[in-house]
Amino acid sequence: MEALKQKILDEGRVLPSNVLKVDSFLNQQIDVKLMEAIGKEFALRFADDSIDKVLSIESSGIAPALMVAKELGVPMVFARKRKSLTISENVYSVDLFSYTTQKHTQVIVDQRFLTAGERILIIDDFLANGQAAEGLLKIISRAQAIPVGLGVLIEKSFQSGRQLLEKANVRTESLVRISSLVNGHVTFLDDGK
Amino acid sequence: MEALKQKILDEGRVLPSNVLKVDSFLNQQIDVKLMEAIGKEFALRFADDSIDKVLSIESSGIAPALMVAKELGVPMVFARKRKSLTISENVYSVDLFSYTTQKHTQVIVDQRFLTAGERILIIDDFLANGQAAEGLLKIISRAQAIPVGLGVLIEKSFQSGRQLLEKANVRTESLVRISSLVNGHVTFLDDGK
Repeated sequence: MEALKQKILDEGRVLPSNVLKVDSFLNQQIDVKLMEAIGKEFALRFADDSIDKVLSIESSGIAPALMVAKELGVPMVFARKRKSLTISENVYSVDLFSYTTQKHTQVIVDQRFLTAGERILIIDDFLANGQAAEGLLKIISRAQAIPVGLGVLIEKSFQSGRQLLEKANVRTESLVRISSLVNGHVTFLDDGK
Repeated sequence: MEALKQKILDEGRVLPSNVLKVDSFLNQQIDVKLMEAIGKEFALRFADDSIDKVLSIESSGIAPALMVAKELGVPMVFARKRKSLTISENVYSVDLFSYTTQKHTQVIVDQRFLTAGERILIIDDFLANGQAAEGLLKIISRAQAIPVGLGVLIEKSFQSGRQLLEKANVRTESLVRISSLVNGHVTFLDDGK
């Protein structure tokens, strides 16, 4: 997706440890027009997949997931993060390990919001090691819902997320694929198709 | 706002300590059509106020704030919550005390995303004791931006938030005002106009 690529080149900041900061248009300040275009693009890519619901994870996934859900005309659900392992009834819960922060987080979705047989599209901002996506897939599986695919805005192709998802047979659509962030320079793999 | 009122009557659940759960359409699962209508309603109410930016706070404020920003054609910014007081440069930071959870949270906005003189509309899901709104107002004040008003989806009129905001001379628009949650029953104050 050319508009997102250009925005990354214009405003993205590469920090140490392969961190790409996109907080001026995606993660804290949101370029709403770009987000709408992102919603339309994913809706187009998954137009023939009879999506029943869009699933994402707080906080950075909420805005793009909402725009995709709006275009598809379906509800959106976001998983919540909890710091501690508390006992909760009536929720699907998975433990998530973040390589970036080196911390465990519990991710939960109320059981009322995922139903057996529902066709689910996962939307998230980044795909790196695929831990968040894997966690959401586990939740979908426990609900006996159907993971139709994953749409991510920015894929770090030099990390293992895509391989993990291909292994799990989950169709993965990235709007932008980044092959390297070496020396503070963003290199794209291709057009993200 | 009649549609929101009806949704609260249909799906809201009153829990102990005056908690109103609206997670089936606002807070975890999102009724996207309702959220769009909410965006349009706030855009109408603040149509003549030359809003430059919508400000909210993660996570539940993001979806409504995004829809309002979309209708107004302006960017959206959301404040992030942090558990611990870490030293950060280049951010506006306030300490927030939640009566609900009895916990302190640090709330931050990157200084790049609020500019002196910008006309800011705050959007949040609930107004209860007004602590979140007060925190965001402090941040706006530090940025020397202009707090044009606060739009909340659900006001608990039996708590002190509105008084606090009136004292601070901040125009407050609530889509729904609740005067009581006694005995598990939702009583509305008026039509929220």
